[in-house]
Amino acid sequence: MDFSVIGPSDVVEDLIDKLKTGRLMALYFIGSTRTSTIPGLSIAGATPELTLYTPACDVEYLVYGRPKSFDVIPVTPEGIPTPAVITRACINLCNVPYTIVDAGSAIEPKIPHIALPSRRVGDPINTGKAMPYEIAKALYNEAKTLAHTLRGADVYMIGESIPGGTTTTLGILSALGYEAWGKVSSASPTNPHDLKEKVVKEGLEKSGLKVEEARQDPIKAVSALGDPVHVSMAGFLHGALENKAKVLLAGGTQMASVLAIAKHMNVNLEGVMIATTRWITSDQSSSLASLVKSITPSIPITSINLDFSEAPYEGLRYYEKGYVKEGVGAGGTAFIAHVLTGKGVRDLEKAIYEEYGRLTEKK
Amino acid sequence: MDFSVIGPSDVVEDLIDKLKTGRLMALYFIGSTRTSTIPGLSIAGATPELTLYTPACDVEYLVYGRPKSFDVIPVTPEGIPTPAVITRACINLCNVPYTIVDAGSAIEPKIPHIALPSRRVGDPINTGKAMPYEIAKALYNEAKTLAHTLRGADVYMIGESIPGGTTTTLGILSALGYEAWGKVSSASPTNPHDLKEKVVKEGLEKSGLKVEEARQDPIKAVSALGDPVHVSMAGFLHGALENKAKVLLAGGTQMASVLAIAKHMNVNLEGVMIATTRWITSDQSSSLASLVKSITPSIPITSINLDFSEAPYEGLRYYEKGYVKEGVGAGGTAFIAHVLTGKGVRDLEKAIYEEYGRLTEKK
Repeated sequence: MDFSVIGPSDVVEDLIDKLKTGRLMALYFIGSTRTSTIPGLSIAGATPELTLYTPACDVEYLVYGRPKSFDVIPVTPEGIPTPAVITRACINLCNVPYTIVDAGSAIEPKIPHIALPSRRVGDPINTGKAMPYEIAKALYNEAKTLAHTLRGADVYMIGESIPGGTTTTLGILSALGYEAWGKVSSASPTNPHDLKEKVVKEGLEKSGLKVEEARQDPIKAVSALGDPVHVSMAGFLHGALENKAKVLLAGGTQMASVLAIAKHMNVNLEGVMIATTRWITSDQSSSLASLVKSITPSIPITSINLDFSEAPYEGLRYYEKGYVKEGVGAGGTAFIAHVLTGKGVRDLEKAIYEEYGRLTEKK
Repeated sequence: MDFSVIGPSDVVEDLIDKLKTGRLMALYFIGSTRTSTIPGLSIAGATPELTLYTPACDVEYLVYGRPKSFDVIPVTPEGIPTPAVITRACINLCNVPYTIVDAGSAIEPKIPHIALPSRRVGDPINTGKAMPYEIAKALYNEAKTLAHTLRGADVYMIGESIPGGTTTTLGILSALGYEAWGKVSSASPTNPHDLKEKVVKEGLEKSGLKVEEARQDPIKAVSALGDPVHVSMAGFLHGALENKAKVLLAGGTQMASVLAIAKHMNVNLEGVMIATTRWITSDQSSSLASLVKSITPSIPITSINLDFSEAPYEGLRYYEKGYVKEGVGAGGTAFIAHVLTGKGVRDLEKAIYEEYGRLTEKK
């Protein structure tokens, strides 16, 4: 089986139909939150400080096949490569038009990219002041406008690269009153739930934000405990649905915060699905399905059954030990590559191994 | 007759077929050259200094219906409104997806826009040093990459907003050895040919660039006497043609410099056409057709027969006295609106008058 489905499969079938007959555009949102520099929280970079540069390097590599701001692709402290390797191999298999959206990268990516005028790095969320309210609101509206001007696609796929994004997701969901403790994912096999909980509880307390207030205006949750990326994705989702398009959220547990923000902005979430990897849906240390169900039960989750246990590269075999799991829309991009090219997961894996081989030989 | 054709009409018919059955994407390139601040050269702004802000305001108005960086839409010193009024009315009639590309605006436009990493305001071309060679080359390549990632369209329409752009066009064409004196257009009814010639000749002399050298590497012509916009459009054109798409150059005589740069970058220009306004093709003080023919005879020019003599607004009636003529892809956008909606020029004019009415009443 190339992919598995959790939730309403008719929504998935509808979307696959649209993918096969209609126009698809993929957008990868990047941004940073200084939350990722809190030691122990994120391994999406060789050091906590380097996590700030991961989003720009991810998308530079995606476009050019090598990062431009730094000489090496983003890796974990153990040297395990960014999931952008999957994304790049798969987006080039299916030849889908795509673009990068900078919602607040710590450094400007050295590739043509869409800049949101209010882009800004988020502050650590344990302060309870992640970003000014006006900035968070502007990002939502700018991304919505972006969807309107990029009208005409039948399906939009949106992915993300933001180290610390599962922690800000926990922050946003908690501020909005969802029971998310212990349910968000991690790029590490040993998910630092305690540290995430500590950071979020500190932020919640300092913000003084009440759940009812946040549910009435989720931009307040973003302003207190969010980040630039998820609010921008929610705004884009809103605009894309207004275009009468379908939306494929390409990501893991972080997509729950996108859904939650949009839901409390009173967006009708019909025609939305999540596409991620098996490493997320089979993860015992998080629960995407439970998070999504608590927000809206109508959203299906597909997971592409990539398996790197036979990979000829140790860096990729580590994915089977619980490292990385998802990011840069890897699962969703593999899903659309499967749907659009008809290639099964074994062929996708082969393309990914070739891409990684090219990359490691280049060094 | 809604539009007229100069040159091979089969190319136009082919492109109209593709427009009707295929996927179209419009991109408006903006940027500045300090050449526009030389007194007497450009009226694309209320004062020479304000011409630097016209591109950002044009596209902010295009997207939002009002500029954000300043409170008023760009006007000539006489108060005649920007052609973006035509563009906005027409792009919204046909609902085409579009985006803005910042190649070097003096201020960042306050809308979601594609940023080219090497964007930069051009220096006055009478210095013979418009921009560093490496920057000009990077802009070309970045825009080409942009076309590659935005693959999938059957037709790309590209327009521009760059005050001083006819003078830099004269500069680029002259550096490349084309006889362009007195042939570039102007937003003014009294085309300042003598001043343009003086500025360009000064730049040519200071640069010391030889025609043969420039023809071998047109980036040198851009670096000496060009600007950020035309080289970026040429790079995008190159990438779009590599995508096997057709390209509609939406503009007046400035499109000649885009063609010339691409030609000497050895781009095969099959499948390219120019779409502009009647105000350009009937202009007695410039000659788009002669410029294009000297570069490549295979490129047709369509001109949309908009006529504002019956406009209920004086600002628009001035267009019939030789003011403005073209810009922000106005002619091309009116052309695609005509082709895609079947509306004739009288209906397009009506929509433009309504748009301008909305704008003036808002004040």
